[in-house]
Amino acid sequence: MRKILIFGAGRSASSLIKYLLDKSDEENLNIVIVDKFLEHALKLIAQHKNGAAKQLDIFNVAARKQEISTADIVISMLPARFHIEIAKDCLEFGKNLVTASYISEDLKLLDTQVKEKGLVFMNEIGLDPGIDHMSAMQVIDQIKEKGGKMLLFESFTGGLVAPESDTNLWNYKFTWNPRNVVLAGQGGVAKFIQEGKFKYIPYHKLFRRTEFLEVEGFGRFEAMANRDSLKYREIYGLENIKTMYRGTIRKVGFTRAWNVFVQLGMTDDTYTMEDSEHMSYRDFTNSFLAYSPHDSVELKLRYYLKIDQDDILWDKLLELDLFNPHKMVGLKNATPAEILQKILMDKWTLAPEDKDMIVMYHKFGYECNGEKKQIESNMVVIGEDQTFTAMAKTVGLPVAIAALKILNGAITKPGVQLPITKEVYEPILKELQQYGVVFNEKEVPYLGYNLFNLGA
Amino acid sequence: MRKILIFGAGRSASSLIKYLLDKSDEENLNIVIVDKFLEHALKLIAQHKNGAAKQLDIFNVAARKQEISTADIVISMLPARFHIEIAKDCLEFGKNLVTASYISEDLKLLDTQVKEKGLVFMNEIGLDPGIDHMSAMQVIDQIKEKGGKMLLFESFTGGLVAPESDTNLWNYKFTWNPRNVVLAGQGGVAKFIQEGKFKYIPYHKLFRRTEFLEVEGFGRFEAMANRDSLKYREIYGLENIKTMYRGTIRKVGFTRAWNVFVQLGMTDDTYTMEDSEHMSYRDFTNSFLAYSPHDSVELKLRYYLKIDQDDILWDKLLELDLFNPHKMVGLKNATPAEILQKILMDKWTLAPEDKDMIVMYHKFGYECNGEKKQIESNMVVIGEDQTFTAMAKTVGLPVAIAALKILNGAITKPGVQLPITKEVYEPILKELQQYGVVFNEKEVPYLGYNLFNLGA
Repeated sequence: MRKILIFGAGRSASSLIKYLLDKSDEENLNIVIVDKFLEHALKLIAQHKNGAAKQLDIFNVAARKQEISTADIVISMLPARFHIEIAKDCLEFGKNLVTASYISEDLKLLDTQVKEKGLVFMNEIGLDPGIDHMSAMQVIDQIKEKGGKMLLFESFTGGLVAPESDTNLWNYKFTWNPRNVVLAGQGGVAKFIQEGKFKYIPYHKLFRRTEFLEVEGFGRFEAMANRDSLKYREIYGLENIKTMYRGTIRKVGFTRAWNVFVQLGMTDDTYTMEDSEHMSYRDFTNSFLAYSPHDSVELKLRYYLKIDQDDILWDKLLELDLFNPHKMVGLKNATPAEILQKILMDKWTLAPEDKDMIVMYHKFGYECNGEKKQIESNMVVIGEDQTFTAMAKTVGLPVAIAALKILNGAITKPGVQLPITKEVYEPILKELQQYGVVFNEKEVPYLGYNLFNLGA
Repeated sequence: MRKILIFGAGRSASSLIKYLLDKSDEENLNIVIVDKFLEHALKLIAQHKNGAAKQLDIFNVAARKQEISTADIVISMLPARFHIEIAKDCLEFGKNLVTASYISEDLKLLDTQVKEKGLVFMNEIGLDPGIDHMSAMQVIDQIKEKGGKMLLFESFTGGLVAPESDTNLWNYKFTWNPRNVVLAGQGGVAKFIQEGKFKYIPYHKLFRRTEFLEVEGFGRFEAMANRDSLKYREIYGLENIKTMYRGTIRKVGFTRAWNVFVQLGMTDDTYTMEDSEHMSYRDFTNSFLAYSPHDSVELKLRYYLKIDQDDILWDKLLELDLFNPHKMVGLKNATPAEILQKILMDKWTLAPEDKDMIVMYHKFGYECNGEKKQIESNMVVIGEDQTFTAMAKTVGLPVAIAALKILNGAITKPGVQLPITKEVYEPILKELQQYGVVFNEKEVPYLGYNLFNLGA
């Protein structure tokens, strides 16, 4: 039996573990899941004969090394900051490693040693990062192979609620870490390049500078820019590309309403509010508005942000109970972002029967034989239930497939890497199709941003 | 002769040094000014027989200790971060110290030792902080002495251009560190309390939440909230006050136009722009606007921020040459804030004959014998020329007066302190009047914010 050691039995591990358990007989696998909470690991193993669950604290060095030293390959699904200790042990004991996280600066420093030992440390092989890299590189490489020159690359991903479970005015529920949703876009300007012009959007304008996307059968979506699209020029080998833009997908109308929170200052996580525990939701809203006892909190907000009372935006705010004087915050020394998260979780938490949905959308503009062309490609995955969510599938399956391929010697190139080479992305994308992760690709007329070649 | 040692011969030292030199015969003073640049110190001494200028690097410990050990009192006009080394030497050699800066956490830690040695370390005794503390505490103490209970305290200060030198559409020129003006309001939410309600304004709304002020003979001003007004409740002994608000004064219309820079993201100092050196002013502006080659930079900006072309705001932007394609930025790896500063300095630098102006405005609301009352108090100082500016006077004179009073034993209370006790503020405010620093105080009807006692 070959031991696959998995750190972390969180929400994104379900499909990953099911995939490996399903293959465990034919592939002769022993799946060991370790987690701080034994019950999380036990639940995912579901008493499968080839699986084992163990309680393990990542900071218990002896126990950690003991598990890693006896593994044939290691997968870490822990938060990214914990990977480095596991990676160092893998290096020490000569084990391959797979993670779905961005390569940290710490991890990058191990690259030479990893190569010297002939090990594969595969990272960024979940959804975003992961499937985005692979599906983009596949098309980019095809374009380059036929002699095309890349002009434009835009890529968008969103974790949303499935149409059948879309029951609120925001067309949104939390299908992932709510805190990350509340803080999205903070911590730095959004930068990208369009037709050779560098563009910068500050946080307080991010939700008003969106783009529209149409996905056949699913209607219109919108996307706001991610933090740093520029760095992907180097990663994808597109140093001289004229347009490079990455963004996050929502249903149309979400960002316009979310912008209310941003403008008020409700997403701020840098300070705690006075007496937050005893505030009502109404007090919370009022604390961002002018003192004016002759006016209602409602009218002050509408006037401040110039919202008509028959604007659907207003109904979205009412739906969240933002003006309720009886609902209490009940959180001590809370930041605005923490309070907003609580208010949103009242309304945006998935019901037991709700399903989630992942949408990914790429645009590739290129020039070939003097002709400008464009390829658009999209993928939609809908979750099965609250265990095998679309998020768990799209994050976990590429990790599982990659791990098995590395274990079987089908992926061998050593180093601290991400899945941008054909050797890696081609077989993985192919296998993902069996699990419903399918890209719909079509040629469309080249659009770009500057059809008439005007200066600006 | 008694040696007064002054660190730093910057712009705010002129009136300070002139005051001391003018008193040097009758008070038997030897004024020693040390600066990194000898010529700065020499210029201020102006060959006065009781003055001496020396070149000194603050990090030359031996030279620094040598100067401090032979001084009778030390004044530091250096940037605040340098005070702590000087303070430690003063403690070692048993010398009193005066600075115009906020008390740092480091400095506060010396308090016990300073008291044990019976030394006076007087800080925050310039303009703001300084004259604001003293003039506020004088009125607050008077109100308390007659049995009044403070309900409201608001305080506003601005460094502006004098009416006779006010020659641009912004009614503003740089009379102080331009970088601080560009970055003003960043680094944390503005918090204050009004009628018992805590209020928070995020940076991107700060310049749209202003208050108006009328100063007789000088017209209407506006004020935006400072970062943390709440901490002054404790400093001024007003823990239970219902309204506490501190702000910065501009001429009306400034903040509405400045808000354009904030909304665009031009005041951001957290990242450097691509190829900033070769950008024109027009490119700089365009980099914050959508890519749209069919539209002019002008129209894109007007549409984005909804500015009518006949709005005076628009003329303010034109006056700054923000759309000029020929003027080059010429700064390598510059942040937006650095580039904006350069653009503003082209237009807002004081001409040789220009004069500056300081405006300070306080409102005190209180209850006495069941009656609500209000006192308003304001001070306007206009500079003489570009050496003896209103800023140099109002920052330097309180420092000089305090230093001489400490040297003469008129101020003796030991410790790391700020000028909020009667022993300190009363004689200093009185002497400042001789130099034109005069507060006009009047009783007005109580206004507060909640005349009809409504809830909100």
